[in-house]
Amino acid sequence: MTDHRTNSAAGPPSAFGSDLHLELRGSGLRAGLTHALREAVRTGRLAPGTRLPASRSLAADLGVSRNTVTEAYAELVAEGRLTARQGSGTRVADRPGQPRGAAPAASRATPARPLPRPRPRYGLQPGAPNLADFPRTQWLAAARRALTAAPHDALGYGDARGRVELRTALADYLARARGVYAEPERVVVCSGFHHGLMLMARALRARRVPAVAVEAYGLDIYRDLLTDAGLRTPPLAVDEHGVRTDDLARLRGVGAVLMTPAHQYPTGVALRPDRRTAAVDWARAGGGLILEDDYDGEFRYDRQPVGALQGLDPERVVYFGSASKSLAPGVRLGWMVLPEDLVPEIVAAKGYGDYMSSALEQLTLAEFITSGGYDRHVRSMRLRYRRRRDELVAALARRAPDVHVTGMAAGLQAVLELPPGTERSTVEAAARHGLAISGLTEFRYETADPGGQLPERDALVVNYAAPSQSAWAGALDALCEVLP
Amino acid sequence: MTDHRTNSAAGPPSAFGSDLHLELRGSGLRAGLTHALREAVRTGRLAPGTRLPASRSLAADLGVSRNTVTEAYAELVAEGRLTARQGSGTRVADRPGQPRGAAPAASRATPARPLPRPRPRYGLQPGAPNLADFPRTQWLAAARRALTAAPHDALGYGDARGRVELRTALADYLARARGVYAEPERVVVCSGFHHGLMLMARALRARRVPAVAVEAYGLDIYRDLLTDAGLRTPPLAVDEHGVRTDDLARLRGVGAVLMTPAHQYPTGVALRPDRRTAAVDWARAGGGLILEDDYDGEFRYDRQPVGALQGLDPERVVYFGSASKSLAPGVRLGWMVLPEDLVPEIVAAKGYGDYMSSALEQLTLAEFITSGGYDRHVRSMRLRYRRRRDELVAALARRAPDVHVTGMAAGLQAVLELPPGTERSTVEAAARHGLAISGLTEFRYETADPGGQLPERDALVVNYAAPSQSAWAGALDALCEVLP
Repeated sequence: MTDHRTNSAAGPPSAFGSDLHLELRGSGLRAGLTHALREAVRTGRLAPGTRLPASRSLAADLGVSRNTVTEAYAELVAEGRLTARQGSGTRVADRPGQPRGAAPAASRATPARPLPRPRPRYGLQPGAPNLADFPRTQWLAAARRALTAAPHDALGYGDARGRVELRTALADYLARARGVYAEPERVVVCSGFHHGLMLMARALRARRVPAVAVEAYGLDIYRDLLTDAGLRTPPLAVDEHGVRTDDLARLRGVGAVLMTPAHQYPTGVALRPDRRTAAVDWARAGGGLILEDDYDGEFRYDRQPVGALQGLDPERVVYFGSASKSLAPGVRLGWMVLPEDLVPEIVAAKGYGDYMSSALEQLTLAEFITSGGYDRHVRSMRLRYRRRRDELVAALARRAPDVHVTGMAAGLQAVLELPPGTERSTVEAAARHGLAISGLTEFRYETADPGGQLPERDALVVNYAAPSQSAWAGALDALCEVLP
Repeated sequence: MTDHRTNSAAGPPSAFGSDLHLELRGSGLRAGLTHALREAVRTGRLAPGTRLPASRSLAADLGVSRNTVTEAYAELVAEGRLTARQGSGTRVADRPGQPRGAAPAASRATPARPLPRPRPRYGLQPGAPNLADFPRTQWLAAARRALTAAPHDALGYGDARGRVELRTALADYLARARGVYAEPERVVVCSGFHHGLMLMARALRARRVPAVAVEAYGLDIYRDLLTDAGLRTPPLAVDEHGVRTDDLARLRGVGAVLMTPAHQYPTGVALRPDRRTAAVDWARAGGGLILEDDYDGEFRYDRQPVGALQGLDPERVVYFGSASKSLAPGVRLGWMVLPEDLVPEIVAAKGYGDYMSSALEQLTLAEFITSGGYDRHVRSMRLRYRRRRDELVAALARRAPDVHVTGMAAGLQAVLELPPGTERSTVEAAARHGLAISGLTEFRYETADPGGQLPERDALVVNYAAPSQSAWAGALDALCEVLP
């Protein structure tokens, strides 16, 4: 989350913050806020690509409810003036959409496709794998084999846990590749981590859990999902050994903790063994649950893979994985491996049926895994991403030797530590060079450090995996150009 | 919903009801109820195929919370002892699953696929189209064209409204085929009607709507979805002219009405024109919304298609459609066409991103529609279903001339009116003949008629579309055998 309010005296002034100037007009607060934001975008006062403050911050600044802000944002997103994407918050669209209210008859006759928007030339923001390397041919071949072999009733309404072919394939794969204790009966298919966490939040609320602890660095969309479900989200500090699970016992009313033990997102460290143990001990002592987001567990470069925490105690750890990093987010398939007693509660949270995930896609992924295509793809991408990472490290050593790189033993991104106070100006300089990039501050939980005890940490989170082969050299060059 | 409590004095005794015998043991109510139900299934006291009472009824009978019952049901569903499927409620599984608690190491070594269950020989329950006729070859060809042509970023995280290719294709198709006022900007893709209604329920709650009126005959899963979201669901009576929209004005706190105007589900009548007008007038007068579930609008046989109600007032009607009847439920794609001011609220309810629907499947459906494959498939199925319907009518005229058939001008099912008091015995006789079939009572909203003013209506809801070609003659024969 971008929250520059705490350092506005020292750092560069924020586009928003306590010095926000938005004239609220119109009948209601929401209409007024929407109008003011729309005008700010239309007139260019808020430039394309500008990240807007978190809804909570802006609501506090303006003295309005958070709903008012989220609804105003939503309206402008729908109008195409703002964008809201995973990992990059709400931003001003590169090219704001056409104003609405055009004559319906005209827009009916020529269905308005959104105009292609000019984008930054290069993008290194975290979130997606290399989409150009999606194995289209192999995926289509698996789809053909799967659909040809499927019984007719596979196309009907499905088991709430997902297709048994996929649950069986995943149970085998996860046990082998990630050390997960998995049986098909405790695997539940979902539409990605977002959906899995939503189901989990519902189940936790049904258990009357009041709070889920989260890492002080992470994605705001997941914190928001939990708070929208009525759960408090007290933060746990993150340092160079991962999340401080030893602090769990000090938090009140926490029934679960959401964490990324194999590769903290986005700082990139693996959780130190004693902290893994501390988390499991905490869960056992108080009946808590560990929600393990193993978003990129397949991609490990320098050492033995860090096995899933779930293997330590399958009745206290919920394992989440997905195809979003290993294949592509657009596949929209994820999986949970659940403690046995949670299965019925998640089935209930799903509404006792599989109303979300395509049976065809589930069968295709099952076939892709069992035929060995998934392993081959992951191995191939691991080599490519490792090469990319090595190229990044080599280029930085040559052209920006003072920049310290961390969090690069695994995954799709690295963290480039910057001199204090230079993160924001670096991100802005990159934007002027046509390079879209994320500062670490974007991922900082705004309420994690109300007292300001934690040291500020200026850094960039660089996704070296995503650029296509043709864009990579240019992106790397632009990055080196703008580093302080 | 099956609720025989109101007629237990006159009719046959129910397996459940006020005379329920379940000994509650164990530490908690839920554990005790789960145990008692499990024992009843294990010992055969509850026979395979038996429909369990609605959770609300059983909770009231036992004096426990509804959650206790739903959780017990969920646990037994997860164990494979009960099944919960759309349109058929919760039932005892045909072959209860293996007891859990087997040695984990053993079940790990040989992943336990659920044993194949013996099924009734024939099934005529409503819900699914003919799955054997899913156009596999054409669908795979569309998938190949779509995935070959897709830009790389189509595989990334997507617009909350869904892929623009699909929204554009749907806007064209729905305007042409269903008279829907549709622009791509007001189309939102979802994972089927269940998901769409869930999003709508969230948006209505955010608007502080207290209640959504529903038809007195319909699917309990949708009523439950609304009540689980915190909405009351007062019922509107259904008669031979459709739902009594003229009663809407008498209900308090109703902000929306969920209805099936083209083909009432499951009674099969088209809403009489004056009642269509009454619904729109009500919506306009009080700022209400009509939620139009157009689940099978493509399949119309005897007359001009009944256009979508949405065409009468696109700012007061939310149109819902899906591929579940026109293609197959396993495709898990649906669509909403929204009043303009609702788009941002549904985008917010979705979490500002498309976290549910596969991009590949959306692109495939878009290609299937724009290439004409969807139209060809619907035309072909319309002819086949019409022939089936004619065969049903002819067979009944010959072998059960006293049975009056209604609701057959459209869709996938017909209603066979039975002599009063014979529905339950007919359903049971069918089960003994290996024919699974649904009584109309299953779809009756249990609280719709607390005073018992509405006449009991004994009938069967017969899905003539679903049986494969090889099963159809046998199913039809079995049906004629068991009719009174």
